[in-house]
Amino acid sequence: MDKQIVNGFSSNELQELFHKAHLAKHRAHCPYSQFRVGAALLTTTGKIYTGCNVENAAYPLSTCAERTAVVKAVSDGEKSFKKIAITSDVEIGFTGPCGSCRQTLAEFGLDMDIYLISPNNEAKMYTLRDLLPIAFTPQDLQKPRASHDIIL
Amino acid sequence: MDKQIVNGFSSNELQELFHKAHLAKHRAHCPYSQFRVGAALLTTTGKIYTGCNVENAAYPLSTCAERTAVVKAVSDGEKSFKKIAITSDVEIGFTGPCGSCRQTLAEFGLDMDIYLISPNNEAKMYTLRDLLPIAFTPQDLQKPRASHDIIL
Amino acid sequence: MDKQIVNGFSSNELQELFHKAHLAKHRAHCPYSQFRVGAALLTTTGKIYTGCNVENAAYPLSTCAERTAVVKAVSDGEKSFKKIAITSDVEIGFTGPCGSCRQTLAEFGLDMDIYLISPNNEAKMYTLRDLLPIAFTPQDLQKPRASHDIIL
Amino acid sequence: MDKQIVNGFSSNELQELFHKAHLAKHRAHCPYSQFRVGAALLTTTGKIYTGCNVENAAYPLSTCAERTAVVKAVSDGEKSFKKIAITSDVEIGFTGPCGSCRQTLAEFGLDMDIYLISPNNEAKMYTLRDLLPIAFTPQDLQKPRASHDIIL
Ligand SMILES: [Zn+2]
Ligand SMILES: [Zn+2]
Ligand SMILES: [Zn+2]
Ligand SMILES: [Zn+2]
Repeated sequence: MDKQIVNGFSSNELQELFHKAHLAKHRAHCPYSQFRVGAALLTTTGKIYTGCNVENAAYPLSTCAERTAVVKAVSDGEKSFKKIAITSDVEIGFTGPCGSCRQTLAEFGLDMDIYLISPNNEAKMYTLRDLLPIAFTPQDLQKPRASHDIIL
Repeated sequence: MDKQIVNGFSSNELQELFHKAHLAKHRAHCPYSQFRVGAALLTTTGKIYTGCNVENAAYPLSTCAERTAVVKAVSDGEKSFKKIAITSDVEIGFTGPCGSCRQTLAEFGLDMDIYLISPNNEAKMYTLRDLLPIAFTPQDLQKPRASHDIIL
Repeated sequence: MDKQIVNGFSSNELQELFHKAHLAKHRAHCPYSQFRVGAALLTTTGKIYTGCNVENAAYPLSTCAERTAVVKAVSDGEKSFKKIAITSDVEIGFTGPCGSCRQTLAEFGLDMDIYLISPNNEAKMYTLRDLLPIAFTPQDLQKPRASHDIIL
Repeated sequence: MDKQIVNGFSSNELQELFHKAHLAKHRAHCPYSQFRVGAALLTTTGKIYTGCNVENAAYPLSTCAERTAVVKAVSDGEKSFKKIAITSDVEIGFTGPCGSCRQTLAEFGLDMDIYLISPNNEAKMYTLRDLLPIAFTPQDLQKPRASHDIIL
């Protein structure tokens, strides 16, 4: 898997993306987990949509920062994503997105970069393709179906 | 249950809310259900956040218009909601929000109005309290727990 | 709304259902909420399927006791439900099912009874129709759609 | 990533697991996607729990075959999983589990084998660790949190 430490790099685009992910984290509604997450999603048109986790007393109704960013983009007419930056309060190491968020992003293509950012702005870069191998995608629903299976 | 046909009323606030719900519907990403939904959420601070449904090839990862609007508001720092307007393409009658959306809204209080709007802008008004009786709310997690149950 | 205190009643069927709901609660995987829930679902064919909540470190992936019972029944070929009993550790009053569970049950018909049971086996009875008014059901997906809306 | 074509192998344990996954698929409640999935989960205690997808008119309330199998096991007191076999009607190639199912399994440990099976009983083997790299796990919730972030 292609990993890359991103640190001290000079891209203004990335720095803005990271900054917005940190800011978004401060909006987290997480009275149950106390685990704040922020995300910033860059579209191929150059727009940035941010998100935080929004929890619910009925835990399954909670949603993640990454998905908040995605639905904001889609409801604004943007469905083509280039990069997402994700951060939490975890001090050491890099916290990966949950499987649901990987799947939500995969709806819109596997060719995007995922930056995991620490609170002190260190980052590691992955691709969505790396993080969701053998992904279930919209194409899977279109594939020919067998009319029988082995047990019949 | 307190219901009210809302038609030909003059509130500019409501008319704007309904208009934005209709517009939001056009952003729906629903290649699987072909069932477009739009929502517009009014906060007590007077802001409006809109949402559409955003589906996923893995159906459980789909989300609804109402929840899209809620997470947009929360990630913008708004957690106090006054009214939500919801519309779909269903021509006759009024389509209620799914149970998940009622629960998502309930996290932020049961005292809000829910307007179900038809494509030709007729509406019916409910309260969230009406639509989610005996609601499970954040308070339920705080209640004293029994140390034993009958089977012990 | 039709409510009924069920206490000291003599139905063996209900007593077995309640007993199994209490027992199911003890299987709850809830290291995050510490909020145990048990459910027991009676099919129209007379079978009982039990469930507990199963939480996940990524909170949105958690699921509820009621839905656990439903998927157990469906994966066993049973889709027609008569009654469900739900219990938690909350000592005083009756805790309602979350909106998601009401919606999950509604897929299979609104004419079922929901018994909320306290740890000391007191119960209150509702119908699903009561608890999910103006329900979104499979029929809603079949209704005629408007080809235009007001904003066009 | 460690992949392995599993074909013509002789393990009775695996053959039973695969057979039960095929059978489980026939229970799928999928009137919306028409995409049947079956799963069979082997615990470290040697029990097999099967599951199918159970969809809902409100698509987000749908659940997957793999998660059905997991909650059945957990509600039966089993939380240690060894292998899962997953099959659908897709004729060519191997269909991966959705991100949500990978996450649901990850709650109970990353060291399990995932067998993707075709309708004609060909299989490919992965590990959960392979399919959910940089997984978000229960340990992530325990890690020390930074008291500040870069933007403060
Ligand atoms: Zn997530
Ligand atoms: Zn909904
Ligand atoms: Zn529930
Ligand atoms: Zn899945």
